[in-house]
Amino acid sequence: MPRRNPNPLPPTTAARLAVADEPGAVAAIASAVAEAGGRLRSLTTMRRAAAREAASGLSQAEVEVEDLDEAALVAALEPLREVVAIRKTRPLDRVFGKRVIILGGGAQVAQVALGAVSEADRHNIRGEKISVDTIPLVGEDTIAAAVRAVIDLPRARLLVLAGSIMGGDISRAADELRAVGIPIIALNMVGSITEHVDLVVSDPVQAGTMAVMAIADTATFELARHRGRRL
Amino acid sequence: MPRRNPNPLPPTTAARLAVADEPGAVAAIASAVAEAGGRLRSLTTMRRAAAREAASGLSQAEVEVEDLDEAALVAALEPLREVVAIRKTRPLDRVFGKRVIILGGGAQVAQVALGAVSEADRHNIRGEKISVDTIPLVGEDTIAAAVRAVIDLPRARLLVLAGSIMGGDISRAADELRAVGIPIIALNMVGSITEHVDLVVSDPVQAGTMAVMAIADTATFELARHRGRRL
Repeated sequence: MPRRNPNPLPPTTAARLAVADEPGAVAAIASAVAEAGGRLRSLTTMRRAAAREAASGLSQAEVEVEDLDEAALVAALEPLREVVAIRKTRPLDRVFGKRVIILGGGAQVAQVALGAVSEADRHNIRGEKISVDTIPLVGEDTIAAAVRAVIDLPRARLLVLAGSIMGGDISRAADELRAVGIPIIALNMVGSITEHVDLVVSDPVQAGTMAVMAIADTATFELARHRGRRL
Repeated sequence: MPRRNPNPLPPTTAARLAVADEPGAVAAIASAVAEAGGRLRSLTTMRRAAAREAASGLSQAEVEVEDLDEAALVAALEPLREVVAIRKTRPLDRVFGKRVIILGGGAQVAQVALGAVSEADRHNIRGEKISVDTIPLVGEDTIAAAVRAVIDLPRARLLVLAGSIMGGDISRAADELRAVGIPIIALNMVGSITEHVDLVVSDPVQAGTMAVMAIADTATFELARHRGRRL
């Protein structure tokens, strides 16, 4: 089975922190990581159990850092007054991996997801990590905003547009997304969208299957070699 | 239709930044946000198009901030030498909303997703934003690690465990997840897991439907009132 990885991520170290709920806490963490020679890939504060945390004066944060191993990350953060506890975690890309995103009408999204989940199962059993993430949406503005927001979704690698009619601002958003390197597969449908995607597939189960094949290192399908095809 | 929101998030402002690719850049951004009176909820650096970015000396970052409006966020970041461009975006919770996470075997994950996507469609049409995010996985260690990692997933509100046999460390991980306030629905299956979840449902399509109902403000189903039931 050939393995390829055209867009590898550098290895990361992750930790969950209990942090003093002060405005400067995040800045202190970011400075400590930079001074130790690391690069903060992501920092997310968790808002659940907000009432309980507010009462304790602590909030929870998840950090992912490049260029530091676990010992170096702990050594950098432990001296900080703002960091009350450090617990090692696994970086999310090692748990949930690459993401196929499916947007559109509920009936079609569900069928594309059926194909994508079944195909991801086959690859994840062989050591891949591929997630299939979906949201059913209605309306040109709503869908166009979601297409643009895929740029900001961590680990998103491919978008499937699943619907019966899409065009207008959705097509403009599709061009913007592809310009940053995220390919798009669309179901065959009316509207201009089929002129603004990498591949058009009529059967939703096959569309989901091919979406996963396109990003799996354990598959041999290269989307770039079939760009513009309509199935 | 009654609306309830037991765990509301404060309003946030979001922006995508082009940032000088220097170790101290994130710390400078975090400091500027704190000095302006804001609270950094999340900061994610984007790694795609890595080669092109490295050549330009810039990287992309997505920031979400509480307690600052758009004008104040721009005013705080614009003077920074490290921030080359600022583009207003929508916070991800306003685009992709609350997340139901589905983990387990491919066949069952796909059927739970079918129910969840269909139900999310009905609520999203009425103004909700609910995503259905899935990953098919095999093995006790792998699934237990994913259950624990749900704690770190932004906007995750409920987990569905979809499989035929789960127990051991998966059950311990389930207890840890519920302890931080994320409820769990499991399919009826063998293994100890059904003793460590909030609700057990035999039909996977119904499990997905009820998972979405449990987190939708536009539904009247309160999971807490039915805890321990087996359907």
